[in-house]
Amino acid sequence: MTQSDPNSAPQAPSLAPNGLSSGLAAVPEPSPELLQRAAAVRRSALALGQRDDGARRAAVLAMAEALEAHRESILEANQQDLAAAAAADLAPALVARLGLNGTKLEDAIAGVRAVAALADPLGRRQLHTELDAGLVLERRTVPLGVLGVIFEARPDAVMQIASLAIRSGNGALLKGGREASTSCAAIHAALRQGLAASAVEPTCLELLTSREESLALLRLDGLVDLIIPRGSNALVRFIQDNTRIPVLGHADGLCHFYVDRAADLEQALRLAIDSKTQYPAACNAIETLLLHGAIAAPFLALALPAFAASGVELRGDAAACALGVARAASAADWGTEYSDLILNVKVVDDLEGALAQIGRYGSRHTEAICTADQATADRFLAAVDSAGVFWNCSTRFADGNRYGFGAELGISTQTLPPRGPVGLEGLVTYRYLLRGEGHTVADYASGAREFSHRSLPL
Amino acid sequence: MTQSDPNSAPQAPSLAPNGLSSGLAAVPEPSPELLQRAAAVRRSALALGQRDDGARRAAVLAMAEALEAHRESILEANQQDLAAAAAADLAPALVARLGLNGTKLEDAIAGVRAVAALADPLGRRQLHTELDAGLVLERRTVPLGVLGVIFEARPDAVMQIASLAIRSGNGALLKGGREASTSCAAIHAALRQGLAASAVEPTCLELLTSREESLALLRLDGLVDLIIPRGSNALVRFIQDNTRIPVLGHADGLCHFYVDRAADLEQALRLAIDSKTQYPAACNAIETLLLHGAIAAPFLALALPAFAASGVELRGDAAACALGVARAASAADWGTEYSDLILNVKVVDDLEGALAQIGRYGSRHTEAICTADQATADRFLAAVDSAGVFWNCSTRFADGNRYGFGAELGISTQTLPPRGPVGLEGLVTYRYLLRGEGHTVADYASGAREFSHRSLPL
Repeated sequence: MTQSDPNSAPQAPSLAPNGLSSGLAAVPEPSPELLQRAAAVRRSALALGQRDDGARRAAVLAMAEALEAHRESILEANQQDLAAAAAADLAPALVARLGLNGTKLEDAIAGVRAVAALADPLGRRQLHTELDAGLVLERRTVPLGVLGVIFEARPDAVMQIASLAIRSGNGALLKGGREASTSCAAIHAALRQGLAASAVEPTCLELLTSREESLALLRLDGLVDLIIPRGSNALVRFIQDNTRIPVLGHADGLCHFYVDRAADLEQALRLAIDSKTQYPAACNAIETLLLHGAIAAPFLALALPAFAASGVELRGDAAACALGVARAASAADWGTEYSDLILNVKVVDDLEGALAQIGRYGSRHTEAICTADQATADRFLAAVDSAGVFWNCSTRFADGNRYGFGAELGISTQTLPPRGPVGLEGLVTYRYLLRGEGHTVADYASGAREFSHRSLPL
Repeated sequence: MTQSDPNSAPQAPSLAPNGLSSGLAAVPEPSPELLQRAAAVRRSALALGQRDDGARRAAVLAMAEALEAHRESILEANQQDLAAAAAADLAPALVARLGLNGTKLEDAIAGVRAVAALADPLGRRQLHTELDAGLVLERRTVPLGVLGVIFEARPDAVMQIASLAIRSGNGALLKGGREASTSCAAIHAALRQGLAASAVEPTCLELLTSREESLALLRLDGLVDLIIPRGSNALVRFIQDNTRIPVLGHADGLCHFYVDRAADLEQALRLAIDSKTQYPAACNAIETLLLHGAIAAPFLALALPAFAASGVELRGDAAACALGVARAASAADWGTEYSDLILNVKVVDDLEGALAQIGRYGSRHTEAICTADQATADRFLAAVDSAGVFWNCSTRFADGNRYGFGAELGISTQTLPPRGPVGLEGLVTYRYLLRGEGHTVADYASGAREFSHRSLPL
């Protein structure tokens, strides 16, 4: 989901993510036992959502302390998972994500403490209107309720999401990958022990363990308010296709970088290399470079050796190939998220040509322009319909932490908010509170009374 | 959707809404021709979204003028639909919604002019942060893109939604009910003629006419950003179940009114009667009255004759029946949205009992408490997880126009925003704009540079 999350790497098992095997006929109905557990989480979460800032902050710190206290048992559990992974001959990339060592665990615990320090997202007044004398409307932020979180192998993600959930007043049903099941159970036990020492009920965090449960989670409409998948594109897409619950997360990151005729070519090259190579598996890495025809030749003269030195394979259209790009891009390449050191190169006539290519193949994630011309930049910023539209900087900045959100839950490429990198605000919603003195609508329908609709201070 | 929208009345054809007949095997793939038309709307909408406030406002006014100029042809087209409806022996409620006369049309045109007068929802800066020297992030509101709007019989709704779409910079694919097809075609022709006289391309508004097209609309992921159903609960639910595109609209409105022991009983009765009878078919009308045990007897002594006089049939639990409610509520009644002059009555021990009933049967739409006790009211306002939570006023206030939004697109009972009554803000999203001076992420990863994350004025 995030560029710092190796789960978005293409090495993840693509059609059987998290035990959600392909060939699945249908998502099963939740068992009565699961419904009961989910309802219990919901009840606890309702109480949690009414706790004040200090109580929720203290609960997250108690979770961090319990993780520290259970450090050895967590690392030991992780060793068991690693041994099983070795026996099962798991892919090295998966093993790397699965493994926890002292440093990784300490980093994760520091992350939990950092979540405690985030500003409270709850109780913010977003709207305040006097509808009529004595009839006052407020809109205040409240928790979503219950999150359904599905991870692939990474056990450290459990700590992060659980702490974000509690900080924002939400309960969570957590389902880790099969490979990490022993680690997840140890972490979950520690987190609940931490909550038991706080004012928040431990039953706010529930761990799902079986494949059936993680599938049935998708059917818990009314009990779960948001599904957060942390894993491969295949996992995200599977979930989106099999639930009516809103899903936070995108399946595609097909980003473009456009070098305008008025670009500083040295700067453009540095930015393109950063956008492609700084973390190629990230969703905000670029897949296609668009070159204005007027600068394609001098840019490629500079760029070909630089990309070669960075290990980037280029695939060009006919014009780019004529200028020295060695391999021709296939029709499918323009729509492929490589998540690897491969980059398409296309020569376009002008800004319109770049916009057309982006409109056709982009995934509305992040696109950037490099130009010294303000008017061209402004047109690009206004015309590109992506969550992030950048000028003279790397697409790799599209990230909740770099944006200053303090945390990132995922990046959304759907158009409706939350869009782009989502911080804590993605875990809250709002409620309208209306306080009256016996006001009836009949009085307004009859004309006996009239609305004032006067804005009050927030 | 709204209480002023008779489409939410239960008389609507329940299983064959809008020609979406039951027994449907699957939603068909869009035809190449539909894909092409939708792509054309998207292109026009992208241009529209870049028009300034004045141009969009002028376009809406031009639409109003064209509707006036085509008044006669629209009324004539409507007469044809009415004649066909009479021949087909259509239900009187449907015919009432279908019919346009001079006054109704003038009201609708006045509504279009009112939309032109609404404040511009676009270009608002929601976030402004310096990430580092020379690297500045902004978040600005932008249009969603393209709306897919599915109406049942009401031709006047076409004018309202089309004007809201253009005002907010969005294109729209409009699909009216079969019964209103001639009226919709005449209105659509007038609207496009109006746009032709403005700076906005007429191709921003496309009318879908066949049943196949309205089904295939649900499959236009990537081309349509939001589906807005205006019609019966059955229509909304069908759409929610058959699309991956976000849907604005709720299927259920099961609202509760709780009379606390500390209530002013005369006030409570007035509010309950307004909440039930002011427009019983509305989604914000109540279905269940909850009575604190301590006041159940005196309240019902007052209320039984009053409800009888208002034509409200009561259905009680055992305690309410013992106090004079004539008919016992069945198990199913507590979860039934009557949309009619029928009201469940349950006696509860205390606030907790009321909360439990709401948690079990409520649809998270709107719930109200009547009490003179501030502490009890505060607990209710904090504990009820509904889009609207009201104190000492009628649930019928849950409405975009009454809230002062100037327009209402629908009421959402999903937890995620937009929640509750949705005004123009439901048609906009945002985009992150990042402007740099050659900034790369590698410099921050290496520690060569550090983020400042300094808030700038909005």
